[in-house]
Amino acid sequence: MRPHVIVNLAMSADGKISTRERRQVKISGPEDFTRVDRLKAEADAIMVGIGTVLADDPSLTVKSEENRKKRIAFGKPEHPVRIVVDSRARIPLSAAVLHKGEGQRIVAVCHSAPQEKVAALREMATVIVTGDDAVDLAELLDRLDTLGIHRLMVEGGGTLIGGLFTAGLVDEFMTFVGNCIIAGAGAPTPADGEGFTVADGLPRLTLVRATRIGDGILLHWKTGP
Amino acid sequence: MRPHVIVNLAMSADGKISTRERRQVKISGPEDFTRVDRLKAEADAIMVGIGTVLADDPSLTVKSEENRKKRIAFGKPEHPVRIVVDSRARIPLSAAVLHKGEGQRIVAVCHSAPQEKVAALREMATVIVTGDDAVDLAELLDRLDTLGIHRLMVEGGGTLIGGLFTAGLVDEFMTFVGNCIIAGAGAPTPADGEGFTVADGLPRLTLVRATRIGDGILLHWKTGP
Repeated sequence: MRPHVIVNLAMSADGKISTRERRQVKISGPEDFTRVDRLKAEADAIMVGIGTVLADDPSLTVKSEENRKKRIAFGKPEHPVRIVVDSRARIPLSAAVLHKGEGQRIVAVCHSAPQEKVAALREMATVIVTGDDAVDLAELLDRLDTLGIHRLMVEGGGTLIGGLFTAGLVDEFMTFVGNCIIAGAGAPTPADGEGFTVADGLPRLTLVRATRIGDGILLHWKTGP
Repeated sequence: MRPHVIVNLAMSADGKISTRERRQVKISGPEDFTRVDRLKAEADAIMVGIGTVLADDPSLTVKSEENRKKRIAFGKPEHPVRIVVDSRARIPLSAAVLHKGEGQRIVAVCHSAPQEKVAALREMATVIVTGDDAVDLAELLDRLDTLGIHRLMVEGGGTLIGGLFTAGLVDEFMTFVGNCIIAGAGAPTPADGEGFTVADGLPRLTLVRATRIGDGILLHWKTGP
């Protein structure tokens, strides 16, 4: 058993999630912000890769007070569990995700992560160790399910999302396509990593819905036919 | 004066135009093929970058006999002018675009392209020389306009499209988003090259129309507000 996995991201009209400098840019507007905050509030946990933590230092908290109150009314913690996939335990101990807002944090590392850093992280978060040289995403998701995480929202970045697709672990793929061009062969995209080859065959999706939001459009795909 | 420039391409749901091996994959289906062939037939010229020629060896001809007949009925040549942007004159003399179908070909090279190869190309195509180390796209488009090319369709690849956006030379941007994931940090995207930085500011688009076609969706953007 693993959680239902929803990947959500904003990309430019040419398929980039940030500039080649990994600087965040305004791709979506306030209407999409509201949608994403609600999606976050409905999840049991929010997951990001270490690249996103190092580049953006997000807190991954639910922003709207109304959404937080709804969670509490449902008997849930104010914020979803926040999870960082961080094979080598590179997360700064000062990272916002470890400090801002109440609630559980999970850092997923692999067996070859530096022991001392892992020990320091255990003071601040639940540490899950899987995989020899990199986090085993399938095993991680199984472990999360046993912890009561059944609805998981993934916010990026491209390396984590590429890894999830490669391992066949994505159920829904929501991309807000914004009205800008970022360009650049080196700019991060929605799914990076190794990628598929023709011989691999490509994962196929079904377009569930396309919705104009602000100046862009939200494409909501599910995996499989 | 320069032609009206329409960029048209198919990308995966995660913003890739081919695999990291630069192998073409089936992103769109027959319905989109029909649309693209019509768009091609309505253009005065079709342009691609040398990377696309080397990877795919396209002929850039109008495929449907009906569309070719319509062109002829309008007093136009059977196929639009076919243009390859090829700064260093790397195009193989056996390239399909130089041989398949009737009509004019233009190869755009820069001043530092090898003279011997340029002389050989002049036997098979009109050669336009602009720019010192790379084709000057703005100057090239001005020259094309004087040759009667007022509606230009650009089919890729990412480097050429990135260059056109950087030079502010794109009027319409049509992306068919297909129902597959390609992934890969090294996979070509709709707009590669250097790319924009936060300091540059990003070109803004307006979503003209979103149309479901087959298993995907066509996003039709224009540049500017």
